[in-house]
Amino acid sequence: MRLILVGFGNLGRGLGITLAEKQEFLKKRQGLVPKVVAIVDETGALVNDDGIPSAKFVAMARSGKKVEKLAGAKKGEIVHDTIEKVAADVVLELTPTNIKTGEPGLGHIKTAMKSNKHVITSNKGPLVVAFKELDALAKSQGVEFRYSASVGGAIPVIELARKLLAGNEVQEIKGVLNGTTNYILTRMGEEGAPFDMVLKEAQELGMAEKDPSLDIDGFDTAAKLVILTNSLLAINAKLKDVKIAGIRKITPEAIKLARDAGQAIKLVGAAKKGMLEVSPKMVPLGQPLAVSGSLNAVTLKLDLAREISITGFGAGPKETSSSLLGDLIDLHRTLGC
Amino acid sequence: MRLILVGFGNLGRGLGITLAEKQEFLKKRQGLVPKVVAIVDETGALVNDDGIPSAKFVAMARSGKKVEKLAGAKKGEIVHDTIEKVAADVVLELTPTNIKTGEPGLGHIKTAMKSNKHVITSNKGPLVVAFKELDALAKSQGVEFRYSASVGGAIPVIELARKLLAGNEVQEIKGVLNGTTNYILTRMGEEGAPFDMVLKEAQELGMAEKDPSLDIDGFDTAAKLVILTNSLLAINAKLKDVKIAGIRKITPEAIKLARDAGQAIKLVGAAKKGMLEVSPKMVPLGQPLAVSGSLNAVTLKLDLAREISITGFGAGPKETSSSLLGDLIDLHRTLGC
Repeated sequence: MRLILVGFGNLGRGLGITLAEKQEFLKKRQGLVPKVVAIVDETGALVNDDGIPSAKFVAMARSGKKVEKLAGAKKGEIVHDTIEKVAADVVLELTPTNIKTGEPGLGHIKTAMKSNKHVITSNKGPLVVAFKELDALAKSQGVEFRYSASVGGAIPVIELARKLLAGNEVQEIKGVLNGTTNYILTRMGEEGAPFDMVLKEAQELGMAEKDPSLDIDGFDTAAKLVILTNSLLAINAKLKDVKIAGIRKITPEAIKLARDAGQAIKLVGAAKKGMLEVSPKMVPLGQPLAVSGSLNAVTLKLDLAREISITGFGAGPKETSSSLLGDLIDLHRTLGC
Repeated sequence: MRLILVGFGNLGRGLGITLAEKQEFLKKRQGLVPKVVAIVDETGALVNDDGIPSAKFVAMARSGKKVEKLAGAKKGEIVHDTIEKVAADVVLELTPTNIKTGEPGLGHIKTAMKSNKHVITSNKGPLVVAFKELDALAKSQGVEFRYSASVGGAIPVIELARKLLAGNEVQEIKGVLNGTTNYILTRMGEEGAPFDMVLKEAQELGMAEKDPSLDIDGFDTAAKLVILTNSLLAINAKLKDVKIAGIRKITPEAIKLARDAGQAIKLVGAAKKGMLEVSPKMVPLGQPLAVSGSLNAVTLKLDLAREISITGFGAGPKETSSSLLGDLIDLHRTLGC
């Protein structure tokens, strides 16, 4: 299976290392032989028609260099050119998310589909901005489109609902979809410390961004909720349809009071017909959404199974490579390449 | 897709009703048209080569009658005959579990496979007694074998690991696998009432069997652990390999002390290489296994995703029909029939 990696940041490098380390495993267990025939980012492209050798690939990924600095790379803005012209089965779009414009991922995915290449992405932006358009383009081009890694990191919730719970109607989705806010709320409860102090600590530990608004004001959760809603409820939802409140006003006293009453306070994204909302909610301890630390969790309400929840780590390059690899194996099984 | 239902108790009837109610849904969403061409139990068989009409099927399921009492049924012990002679794609083996002998399910499954029929079962017995044998027989006969419903009711944990997390090695399995014990432990904590009293209450509510030993002494959990171990860890485990302790000695005081320390007491089945154990364990609140009431939960330790947990209802005819239907849809996708 011939792959083009678009984006060579944490996720692209993490996937590269995983593919190299799992070479034997993938061949033996799945009959899958992935060949990375191109790596490309906004600085340049490295193309190798025979597949970049594993050892070289790992060294490049560990170097942390932009593509233009890799030996043998062509410099320049040649992402679209590379996607179009290099012979490949699958394009892995792994550039950073922009939930307002969807770019540059949106353009990359369209170019890939128009060049009759299957697409796997971890990028929320294009899905938040143009879910229906991309879904339709994939169908009209006859290509597969997978995005397990875009929501919940390692948690394959979309495929869980679509494949394993396929006999059910999904009636409602509720999720703790942002690890940073869950970490902050958990630490506030453990330390009795105020929001600002815990946020600062999280930033120092690299658990929160310098500009934390995307996480703590609920936009990241809302973006994931939009993707889940489009994927599983067959509702054409956009970010502007979500009523959003973040966690800035939560106090350690409120968390303590809730805990004394057998509850946890979580930033919950919830969606059903006519309602999309992100807000801090009380969740009874002992319920699957009451997970602590940086865990994510999603609960699906279903007509037969009633409720199924799935929990795991929502971020991290290795964890996310689990979902990307799951999608790759699925394409391998579907396409036979 | 032509189906034979073996066993017409709660699960068989529940599946029958679900298939009838979901007729349109399955056709439209999955292109699946299931036809029940035979229902058979230890009392007799009802065969209809055109498929038993939905309305009739639902009325029969709701009547609660044994098969011999159904209009048009042949009486007598003709399960094996029916499995062998009726033309069908899939045999659904839904008779009650016997974890010591595996019978009568074990014999039914072998007969089905030897007659070149694919098998779906909810029956733990045959899998606990003869996992490797049945796995090998399915392979040598070239038939598919699915058993999602045998562990965790509505929770598709086996397929989750095999399909969606296929890029991972499963390193360890931990599960709260018995709803009855989880319900009892939860109620003991809520009421501060002793084990015997809560057990009696659970029996009156139909949440526990008259002979509760299978559940509360840990054998049911151990049986499910053996199936998960065989399925996901590639270890040929038997019931005798599991070190088993139940919940009879747990006191409400212990549950309260644990809770004050931020922990819950759960009956946990745990398996990794060289260790299979069922015993009451402290689980931190906020961890996925700390689910309350009659919920089940399974945590998989994995090399890439680190930890993925799945939670849901482990019993009930409607809930279990979610898993049986999931397996049916999977066979439909795999076989195209």
